[in-house]
Amino acid sequence: MLKRYLLTPGPTPVPEAVLLAGAEEVIHHRSQEYSELFLEVTEGLKYVFQTKNDVLIFGASGTGGMEAAVANLVSPGDAVLVASNGNFGERWQQLCEMYGAEVTTLEYEWGERVPPEDLRKALGERDDYVAVFVTHAETSTGAVNDLEAIGAIVRGHPALLVVDTVSGLGAVELRTDEWGIDVAVSGSQKALMSPPGLAFVSVSEAAWERAGKATSPVFYLSFEHTKKALENPRPQMPWTPPVGVVQSLALALEHIREEGLEKLFKRHRILGRATREAAKALGLELFAGDYPEASAVTSISVPQGLDGKKLNALLKDKYGVQLAGGQGKLAGKIVRVGHLGYFGPFDIIIAVSALEMALNELGQAVPLGKGVAAAQRVFLEEDAW
Amino acid sequence: MLKRYLLTPGPTPVPEAVLLAGAEEVIHHRSQEYSELFLEVTEGLKYVFQTKNDVLIFGASGTGGMEAAVANLVSPGDAVLVASNGNFGERWQQLCEMYGAEVTTLEYEWGERVPPEDLRKALGERDDYVAVFVTHAETSTGAVNDLEAIGAIVRGHPALLVVDTVSGLGAVELRTDEWGIDVAVSGSQKALMSPPGLAFVSVSEAAWERAGKATSPVFYLSFEHTKKALENPRPQMPWTPPVGVVQSLALALEHIREEGLEKLFKRHRILGRATREAAKALGLELFAGDYPEASAVTSISVPQGLDGKKLNALLKDKYGVQLAGGQGKLAGKIVRVGHLGYFGPFDIIIAVSALEMALNELGQAVPLGKGVAAAQRVFLEEDAW
Repeated sequence: MLKRYLLTPGPTPVPEAVLLAGAEEVIHHRSQEYSELFLEVTEGLKYVFQTKNDVLIFGASGTGGMEAAVANLVSPGDAVLVASNGNFGERWQQLCEMYGAEVTTLEYEWGERVPPEDLRKALGERDDYVAVFVTHAETSTGAVNDLEAIGAIVRGHPALLVVDTVSGLGAVELRTDEWGIDVAVSGSQKALMSPPGLAFVSVSEAAWERAGKATSPVFYLSFEHTKKALENPRPQMPWTPPVGVVQSLALALEHIREEGLEKLFKRHRILGRATREAAKALGLELFAGDYPEASAVTSISVPQGLDGKKLNALLKDKYGVQLAGGQGKLAGKIVRVGHLGYFGPFDIIIAVSALEMALNELGQAVPLGKGVAAAQRVFLEEDAW
Repeated sequence: MLKRYLLTPGPTPVPEAVLLAGAEEVIHHRSQEYSELFLEVTEGLKYVFQTKNDVLIFGASGTGGMEAAVANLVSPGDAVLVASNGNFGERWQQLCEMYGAEVTTLEYEWGERVPPEDLRKALGERDDYVAVFVTHAETSTGAVNDLEAIGAIVRGHPALLVVDTVSGLGAVELRTDEWGIDVAVSGSQKALMSPPGLAFVSVSEAAWERAGKATSPVFYLSFEHTKKALENPRPQMPWTPPVGVVQSLALALEHIREEGLEKLFKRHRILGRATREAAKALGLELFAGDYPEASAVTSISVPQGLDGKKLNALLKDKYGVQLAGGQGKLAGKIVRVGHLGYFGPFDIIIAVSALEMALNELGQAVPLGKGVAAAQRVFLEEDAW
């Protein structure tokens, strides 16, 4: 009878109606009916990406989308610049290396933000970078990089700006076109509040040009194949897609359009602020700082002497509240509260009250209800509903 | 994007898997397959009723079950005794009057409990009562009558003991056989955490005897027809049942058996106590007292000068948290928090934190987080998970 609460930064909670849409009869993926659904989803994605560029859809995870970006844009020997401040920055580096690029990495402590001026300096030092890879919202820490400032810097340089916004899209403002982002990668299982199964990649004209010249082997994740299928009289995907996820996503995007981007981002900012205020009220340390843009994930440092894995296990197995732990070198050191997608104020209250109780149960005497009260104050002040 | 929380005392939250079971293919209600499901449900109900008596199932609401009890047992002119301490006590009276009984009503203030000794006195005053009608958990207030004591008193008298346990069954201990309850009535949409649509009536031997003599007209809700269909080589219901609800209920009863009655009642007692402690910590008045058996519903008096309807409307329409208001003469004067069925500690935390915020928003400065903390303390002390 344990009620379960999935409060992780991906997968995220999916509204029941969205789940049920994916359980409807399978539509044939070469039919007119599917084509209409697919176009609707493509248009919905452009709305969230705030772009007029192509948005390609792949039957893949976010990592698949990231690999698509690298495989389609980078040829062996190409110079690329990676700014890495977490687990997914490292993934850009790994992918670029695997595809034979000559990689320069600006590496920052996990939890820090990439200082845009460092990119200006690096780009000033050599002019043959074909692309700059950067993370939007680092799922591993919750740090959010300033893409507006980074975009303004990269714009003055021939390199493409390629962004991993898997956890950012729909939770943190992203103005793909206005900020000069050539390629942005995301997925269905985060703020778009759909089941996992689809990756999205927006592609600017300059990126298309670069893709035309790239020589790395790529088939399933090919931009070209995907674009060609999109230009079919019945627009579709080149290979069999997870149709149920497309059906779910169509409904989720409808909900997002109804809410509208302004309210969507405001809701996420309030959820992030409430989570941070709650942690601070409990005397807990925010691992990745405290600023309004950190609206997708909040990382809280586990108090000294406590094993974060034990804390998360207690929360999940006993209380039914699933938060995320630290990845890689942060394993056991932080807990991460997701608040991207189908999250509302009471999800934060559940997460915070569960943390309060679990910490007490593990001998850390944080004051019960104090974090909840701090979150409540934010919700009332910001008129969260 | 408003997340909705149904925290009312009926309908109650239904686990997703239970809902989905009711969305499976329709089984023909005269088939062997249905018969097996139906028998399984009947056995499951006997387990929860703690009875070896027949448990009859009707395609009806709890009120339909109550009418079945009256229509099958009471003939015009019969003397009956009704103990009424709320809306559903009044319903017993209404039904008995409608079927032409000569009704004596012991009437108590809503929110009070029926003093068992009053029944002893009333039964001592005349010996021709054919039945005593009483409520177990009064949904309208949360008051719970002491059926063990009442049963011990009625046992020494020829009258049948007929109990409305629509909101009690599965939330508050009910020992049908041990306590000498001849007829107990319940429904699917309360602590049995299933969708609405089914009523259950347990019938003792003495009740069958009385039913054999009763002369009121009854067909759809007839004990006799229902028993006859149950004795068919393929046990079934006499008229077309809501098969989906039966399918859902079968799964819900499986969950209840897995949890076991002891844990089930302990969970409800903890939820009730946490709700009451939260209300007290906020300086709010408990409308129906403070005792461990009050484990199905908690009624909280709305502070002076505040309209309870406004409070509930704010909670529901803005916050997405649906609590119940007062019924009949209590309209606008109390809010009722349900905690029967598929409820867990975080449902109480949601209800309490929502109440805290809504009261503040309406100008009642209750301390944010203080009620939540009181509930948390109960959960930790009682090892709620």
